[in-house]
This record gives sequence, C-alpha cells and structure tokens, in this order.
Amino acid sequence: MAGPPDGPAGSDLHLELPATGGRRAALMAALREAIRSGRLAPGTRLPPYRSLAADLGIARNTAADAYAELAAEGWLTARQGSGTTVADRAEPVAATRARRTSPSRRPAHDLIQGRPDASAFPRADWLAAGRRALTSAPNEAFGPGDPQGRRELRVALADYLARARGVRTDPERIVVCSGVAHALRLLFDGAGAVLGGPAAGPLAVEAYGLGFHRALLARAGVTTLPLPLDEDGARIDALAEHPTVRTALLTPAHQFPTGGPLHAARRAAVIDWARGSGALVLEDDYDGEFRYDRRPVGAVQGLDPERVIYLGSVSKSLSPALRLGWMVLPEQLVDRVLAVKGEREAWASALDQLTLAEFIESGGYDRHVRRMRRRYRDRRDHLLAELAVRAPHIEVSGIAAGLHAVLRLAPGTERSVLKAAAYRGLALDGLADYRHPLIGPDAMPVADGLVVGYATPADHAYQAAVAALCDVLPAPL
Amino acid sequence: MAGPPDGPAGSDLHLELPATGGRRAALMAALREAIRSGRLAPGTRLPPYRSLAADLGIARNTAADAYAELAAEGWLTARQGSGTTVADRAEPVAATRARRTSPSRRPAHDLIQGRPDASAFPRADWLAAGRRALTSAPNEAFGPGDPQGRRELRVALADYLARARGVRTDPERIVVCSGVAHALRLLFDGAGAVLGGPAAGPLAVEAYGLGFHRALLARAGVTTLPLPLDEDGARIDALAEHPTVRTALLTPAHQFPTGGPLHAARRAAVIDWARGSGALVLEDDYDGEFRYDRRPVGAVQGLDPERVIYLGSVSKSLSPALRLGWMVLPEQLVDRVLAVKGEREAWASALDQLTLAEFIESGGYDRHVRRMRRRYRDRRDHLLAELAVRAPHIEVSGIAAGLHAVLRLAPGTERSVLKAAAYRGLALDGLADYRHPLIGPDAMPVADGLVVGYATPADHAYQAAVAALCDVLPAPL
Repeated sequence: MAGPPDGPAGSDLHLELPATGGRRAALMAALREAIRSGRLAPGTRLPPYRSLAADLGIARNTAADAYAELAAEGWLTARQGSGTTVADRAEPVAATRARRTSPSRRPAHDLIQGRPDASAFPRADWLAAGRRALTSAPNEAFGPGDPQGRRELRVALADYLARARGVRTDPERIVVCSGVAHALRLLFDGAGAVLGGPAAGPLAVEAYGLGFHRALLARAGVTTLPLPLDEDGARIDALAEHPTVRTALLTPAHQFPTGGPLHAARRAAVIDWARGSGALVLEDDYDGEFRYDRRPVGAVQGLDPERVIYLGSVSKSLSPALRLGWMVLPEQLVDRVLAVKGEREAWASALDQLTLAEFIESGGYDRHVRRMRRRYRDRRDHLLAELAVRAPHIEVSGIAAGLHAVLRLAPGTERSVLKAAAYRGLALDGLADYRHPLIGPDAMPVADGLVVGYATPADHAYQAAVAALCDVLPAPL
Repeated sequence: MAGPPDGPAGSDLHLELPATGGRRAALMAALREAIRSGRLAPGTRLPPYRSLAADLGIARNTAADAYAELAAEGWLTARQGSGTTVADRAEPVAATRARRTSPSRRPAHDLIQGRPDASAFPRADWLAAGRRALTSAPNEAFGPGDPQGRRELRVALADYLARARGVRTDPERIVVCSGVAHALRLLFDGAGAVLGGPAAGPLAVEAYGLGFHRALLARAGVTTLPLPLDEDGARIDALAEHPTVRTALLTPAHQFPTGGPLHAARRAAVIDWARGSGALVLEDDYDGEFRYDRRPVGAVQGLDPERVIYLGSVSKSLSPALRLGWMVLPEQLVDRVLAVKGEREAWASALDQLTLAEFIESGGYDRHVRRMRRRYRDRRDHLLAELAVRAPHIEVSGIAAGLHAVLRLAPGTERSVLKAAAYRGLALDGLADYRHPLIGPDAMPVADGLVVGYATPADHAYQAAVAALCDVLPAPL
C-alpha cells in the first residue's frame, strides 16, 4: 500500500466548532463529519494534536483525548512515530437513495373495506384513560412483561366479551396479541406452532375471505380448503367431504366479505362437527360490535368454549394503529400458545394494554363503539339512499352489520367497473380478490361484485366518495 | 336420544331480572346464565313465552324476541309443535382450573441482570410526551400502519443515534421493531427470512451471551459457532477458522455479560473481515447509553454502515414493557426486511412510537438516561465499596458500563454459591448460564462467576440486596 497521501499540514485542517458546549465532543463530531463526508480521505495524516489544539484555541489534553477516542472507535489510526491518520476503513457512507420519493398515491376517494375512520379516533378520551392507567399502575407494569398480556386487560376483556359478544371465558383463557394475523401466526406458523405442522391436516376456510390470511397460512405451510357459501353462510355440511380437516376458520357474525350471519342451525352444526371429530373452530369476530338492524348475534364460542378459539381486536372498533387483539382459548391450549408466544417476544405494549383496560372499564370503549355505530349506520343509510336513486338496479347485500357492503354486478363486468373506478381515483375492491383459488364454479357460482368500505373516509369526504361510486356503476342492462 | 327431561313447567322457571335496564337483554342474560350454570340442562323444555312473560311481568313480544335470539345464537332449539328447549350442545363451561395459583415467587432480593429499575419509569414525562404527540398527530396516524414504523420516530432515532452512539444512518434505513429478539426473528426465522435458511451458513456469536438468543436461533434452524473471548473482547481472528460464516453477532460496546468493550483493533478487524468475505456484522448495542468512567465508545456501525446491522431498544434505557426497538440496516437489506415484517403484522403500537419520538425530540429521553446513569453509577459504586470491605478477595469486572457487573469466583464454586443465594432468596445468574455449549475449555478456560444486575431493584431495596450478596460470597481460600 502506498504511503498516506498529502494531508492537511499542521494548522490547515479546517474544522468549525460550535461556540458553546463541550470542546472534546465538538471536536470529535467535527472530525467524524469530515471523515464521513469524504473531506478527510482514508490514509490522510492529521495534524499533531498540539497544533490542532493551538489552532482551535482548545486545551491540548482535549485534542489528545479526542484523537485517542476516535482511534478507539476505529475512525483514526495512531502509529508510534508516524502520527495519526484517518483509518483505512472509515469510508464515507453512500448517500441513501431516496426511498418512496414518488408522490404518495393516495386515492381521491377511498372505499377500501376494513378500516375505521381514522379521523374519529377518540384522542382526548384515550389520553385521559392513559393518564389514569399509568398513574395508578404498579411499578412492575414497567418491568418485563407477561406473554399472556396484562391481567388488568384480560379482566376487562373477559367482562366486555361476555357482556357484548356472549363469549364465555375468564381472564386466564385470554391471551393478548397484536391482532388476528398475529394470532394465526402463533397458532400455525413456525416450529412448535400450536395447530400447524404436517400432522395437523388442512384448514377449512370460507370460500370468500381475506387473501392476506390465506397467504399467511400458505407461507406457514398450511393447506386451506374452501367451504362453499350460500344464503345461510358457510356450508358446514361440506366438512364431511374432508375427513382430514381438524380446524375451520369462520366469520360467523358477519361473513367476510359477503356479509351474512351464519345460520343458527349451522352454528349448532359446526359445534357438533368439532365435537364429533375432535376438531376446533376458529371464530374471527372481526366486526362483531357493528350491527345496525337487529340485536347482535352472540359469538359461536359461547356454545362450546372448549371447541372454539375466539379471535378479536380493536383494529375495526378503535384503530389498527394500536396493534392490539386477543385470543380466547380452550383451557387445554393456553399453555401451548403461551410457550410459542413467550419464545417470540413481539408482544403488545404493556402501556397500551393498561390504557385499553382502563378505557373499557371506564365505559369509554362502549361510548366510542356506540358513537361509531351511529356514524357508520348513517353512512350505510346514505349509501343505500344514493344507490336507490342513482342505481336502483344494483343489488346490495351484507348491510345489516359491519363496515362494508357488497354490491352485486352482472357476470363478467367486475373488472371493467374496477378499471373505471381506478381511472376516477376511487379505491375499492372487487369480490374476485376474496375468492379462494380452489373453489370451482360448480361448488359455488362466481359472483361479480364490489366490496364497498364505507367507514374509511373522513366524514367530510364521504359523500363525494359515494357520488364517485355511483358514477362508475354500470347502467341497467 | 330420549325425549326432553321434565323441565320447569309453565311458570316455575325461576329467573331474577334486575329491576332496571332493558327487559329483553336482561331475560337473555338470565337464560344464558341458567344454561351456563347447568341449572337448565340440555333438552330441558322452557315454558311458553306467553306464560314466562306473564310471570315476569314483561311484554309478550319481549319474551318472544329473547327466545328467538337465543335460538339464533344456538342456546335454544325451537321446534314447531314441541315448544322451545335448551339446545343439546349448550353445555356449561367447565370451571377453568385456577392458573398460577401458587403465591408468586418473587425473590426477596432481585439482582438478575438486564432489567432497568421499574420504579424509575418517568410516568409524568412520558404521559406529557404522549399528550403532545397524540394531540398533534395527523389523522392517518390512527389508520393502518407502516411496517417500517412511524417516520416521526425514525427521524428522531436517526438524530439521536448519530449524536449519542455515532451511528451513521438516515430515517429510511431504520426499521422499528419490538426489540432485539424480534429483530433476530425477522432476520433469521421462517420462510423468506433475510439472513436465515440453509444457504446462509452458521452464525458466529460470542462465547458468552444470552441463552435466549441462542435458543431463538436454534429454533430457527440457525447453527451458532462461538468466538472465544479474551481481555480485548471477541477473538475476531477466530473467524478465519470458519470460512462458511457470513454473519457475526457481537456486543462491541460492552461484551454481554463479561463486560469489556471490543478493542479498537478488533473493531477494525471485524469490519475488514466483513468486507473481505462479503459478510455482515450484527451489532447488539444493548446498553450503549450506560457508560460511567469514560466517554462512550461509538457504534461499530459508524465504521461501515453497509456491513453492519445495528440493533437497539428502549428495554434497558426506559422499559421493556414498551416492546420498542429498532434496526439500522444496510441500504440493500431494507426492502427485504420490510417484506418479511409486512407479512407478519406483529408491529409496535403507532401511538407508543409517536410518544417515543416526542420524548426523544423534547429532550426527555436524554434527561431520563442521564438520571438513570447517575443512579446506576451510584449503585455500582455502592456495590464496589461494599465488596471492598466485605469481600476484598473477589475480583469484579465489566464495571465501566452497563447495568451489571461480573464477580469472579474460584473454579468449581459457582454452583454452590448460587445454591446459597437461592436459599437466601437472592436471585442472580451464574456465568455458566451464558457460556456457549460448543466452546471447549481449550479454546477458552471455564470461568466461574456471578452476573450481578444492580439496576433491577427499587432504590429502597438495593442496599439489602447487596448485603445479601455479600453474605453468600465465599470466604477467601
């Protein structure tokens, strides 16, 4: 290797130190910055610390210390007799290419399903609950957590879920998690997964459902088999054709996304199936709080808590930003789920858990849900009224509950309607996105349609979004 | 199946409804409770709704609705002509066996390493930061999150880490996660893991380290090879013996748990190794903020940001209950880590992220770290002073930084000292727990010792814990 290039001699190393603050730290920062920027190249010889100190008007010890520390950090190399040089490996960082510099492609109108109105988050009430919760929390709340979740939250959830959803549980059977996707990963993904693995057999799912869940399960090596849907919900009788299935994932309160509740006879039948075949039902109660036209249908879990894993979260009712959800487990699964969860360590914040517990117990959660229920019902009513005027030929379903409706389209027209919507800056999904790839047209006819999420926009943007939707709907045949 | 057992006839079904509140909901709750408790067995015939309504003094419609809804929920079975019976499958839930009913086994004195003093969490400052952050946050903060983490936090972290730890980064290279264990899972575990898989080769680790991390990696199918330690830290030269190693996990600022910083020449050497072999260094900066006797050693990451993945969290500096950490990534890895993280959905709370960003930017985080640094230094000094008086023969190391010290013991005595400690209700770890199982006594002599975490107890409990420690230390030979 060649000798060091000619560097700045004695006093010509230009460094600007701020007028105030610690001299040593300032000198170290200035030298680091000069090396980082490439102004001082690797191998460059630095002035002796004495001359640098004189030049900068700082104490000699200060300059000597700064050199020594930068050498200890690997920025500089000090060799007896040859002075101090910039270390070979202290290369300047390449400027990070700007990421995502394209203007954010927010749609003009957002009717994507599954998101609550973010502008309606109850900031003041949440902050007040947080203040009460954190002020009164025991010190151990700020120590290492429990993979099961804070007991304060599990107690609040056990009461709330029994009261509002007919779930039969106690705090010891509840495991706090980040949401339904996290629950599915704990149950199915990875070594030691509770329900996964080659021996566990395929998982029955509904013929229409969330592609994200199917993809997550596929990556975990879980085969999913679709159950056809009809006007009473998932065809539980089809489980008889798949004797290796030991688990069925259902959305009984409000089939996602087609919208109907599972019929009472089917609720009973799926419990009978689970009991008869030693199987389990996974109940995804994703929007159980939002029912408009009749009293809520309670959770299937209430029929047999030892045969149902109940999954819920605040993602629809409050905010997906909190990443807070829960599993209500059969007694025999609690320890196994905790073992997997304890190994993984990506738990929910204990502080948010305490705040949610206080929010529920103080009645703030119920008040928020009631307020949002009224708001979403008004939006649904507005959607129906507009459609009745501007597109009376369009059949609407799934409207008794939830945060979205399904608009049926004539066969073969879904794709062109979605294209027209995209052209108008209107974001929404087609039914095809939700259909399981293995469900044949003979098992269940292909239905064209739109999934319209009416919760997503802020209040002021909603009417324009519905108007844009009406604009792209096809005229009657 | 036999016919329904004799049930309560017409009016002798005893139900107590509360005096106020909705009649239908109250009746449904009372019936559910009676079924749940087993008082109404499966198959029991209920009185006709008319007589029940008369008996309870409620409207007929109300009773009819309650029956219909309980039938829809599967609790009751309504058959034309045979009245309403309790459904076959509505079995009472078995009382959950009490879990963890044993009195919680808190040790009398807790000197387990790795935990900050939970009583010192800055509740008021954190709440104030939360109020400022949530009040001023844009609405989209309460919508679906970004797997990379809130930009506000990444901006604050980029500034803080550059200033306090010499990390060279920008917000686009930072990925927020739940902590170091979560980061290791994202990098190594599961299909599509960034650095894992059979092709990635073994991972070099330090001969002493966290067993939890080794176990996590083993479950992910990652083989770990131990690097011997000496007074200058990990023996980087030993990497030459393992040409298949492409990643090395190190704790350069303060070797965990033995306590020394990685020597400047070794810092340079590991970067040279990474460049020469196309490898990566994982830098676990688990307690970089806590250095007492000299200025902090900056992060190795600053030497070459494209060759180092820097990992940190608030678990030691603030609280493990927040489950908040970060990865600073080489440019080329950012998209791959985000793809894995986006698939998994167990993200940190956006609200806590906003609060931490505000806490850092307002100077609250620095103030808290300085306060805790003073507190822990005082505790360390007290420990050293007590040991100097009561056990001057015991060698103490790793004391220039961190939240723990290592006390050397005579060979073969560690286990008996730990037994004596347990007998006294004193919780602490022995060095043996941290030793890699594959490191032979010829590569590195077995050292007996205690890992003493002096941050864990509350202030008022600390002196008694140190006294208990001194009581169990062996007398001089």
